[in-house]
Amino acid sequence: MQLKKIMLATCAFSVLAVSAAHSQTIGKAEDQVRWRQSAFSTMGWSMGRIKANVSGTYNKEQVTQAANTLQALANSDIGSLFAPGTESAKGWKKTEVKPALFTDKEGANKAWASFAKEADELAKVAAASDAAAVKTQFGKVGQACKGCHDKFRVEH
Amino acid sequence: MQLKKIMLATCAFSVLAVSAAHSQTIGKAEDQVRWRQSAFSTMGWSMGRIKANVSGTYNKEQVTQAANTLQALANSDIGSLFAPGTESAKGWKKTEVKPALFTDKEGANKAWASFAKEADELAKVAAASDAAAVKTQFGKVGQACKGCHDKFRVEH
Repeated sequence: MQLKKIMLATCAFSVLAVSAAHSQTIGKAEDQVRWRQSAFSTMGWSMGRIKANVSGTYNKEQVTQAANTLQALANSDIGSLFAPGTESAKGWKKTEVKPALFTDKEGANKAWASFAKEADELAKVAAASDAAAVKTQFGKVGQACKGCHDKFRVEH
Repeated sequence: MQLKKIMLATCAFSVLAVSAAHSQTIGKAEDQVRWRQSAFSTMGWSMGRIKANVSGTYNKEQVTQAANTLQALANSDIGSLFAPGTESAKGWKKTEVKPALFTDKEGANKAWASFAKEADELAKVAAASDAAAVKTQFGKVGQACKGCHDKFRVEH
């Protein structure tokens, strides 16, 4: 019974997280919301940098930097920042997460895994290939972002 | 003369950046400040995660995730987000950067390079070593952060 409780508690903390078991949870609700908003803003910056490169003059080093940042964040257990109690907390601003993210954990995990897969591939392509290949893979990452936003982010 | 102007403009955009030549600059001043505040907040989150692990139960996967995020950001040309015109702009909040960062470019580049070196090493140590080795290298990263904050960040 005690073990079951511990397992349930562990599950509650692992929204979006494939491997958060036994990991340290830090911060209050408002810290977690600020951190997740910061991580998504950093991903937005990185996507913007890659977009500017595939649309304009291509700088492989800049694209690689941005793709590596996306990959690191995609694999950095951002799901741990969606712990219970953060559903309506304010970070830098009011959270834009739909309640569905906290109830449809399977859907959220699936959407995130899809993004992480495409981001991993983008980092590989950025390091090894040319602008055309990056543009194609960048489109797939964008689709994965959109798929998750459509389901789990409030329109604004 | 025209070339000289272009070179000067390129230099002006490469505060802190070792290799920003010819890279795309995106965003307005307020976007850049929000992005840099987000990147530093994401680094703060990652440092907090590692601290919790070296002070408590150690989870190698979580430490590796956080160290990889620090490394990616340390090498992601965050200096490009300190372009002229962002000295007093507001992002999520008023910028905390001291004017010195925009005048002492050599000092800023040196401080950032020191952080990037220690962050690169931390990512290696996190992947290959144990909690004790990570704790030591984590201390070095923290010192590099502090060295830069003391010089270039307003006390708060």
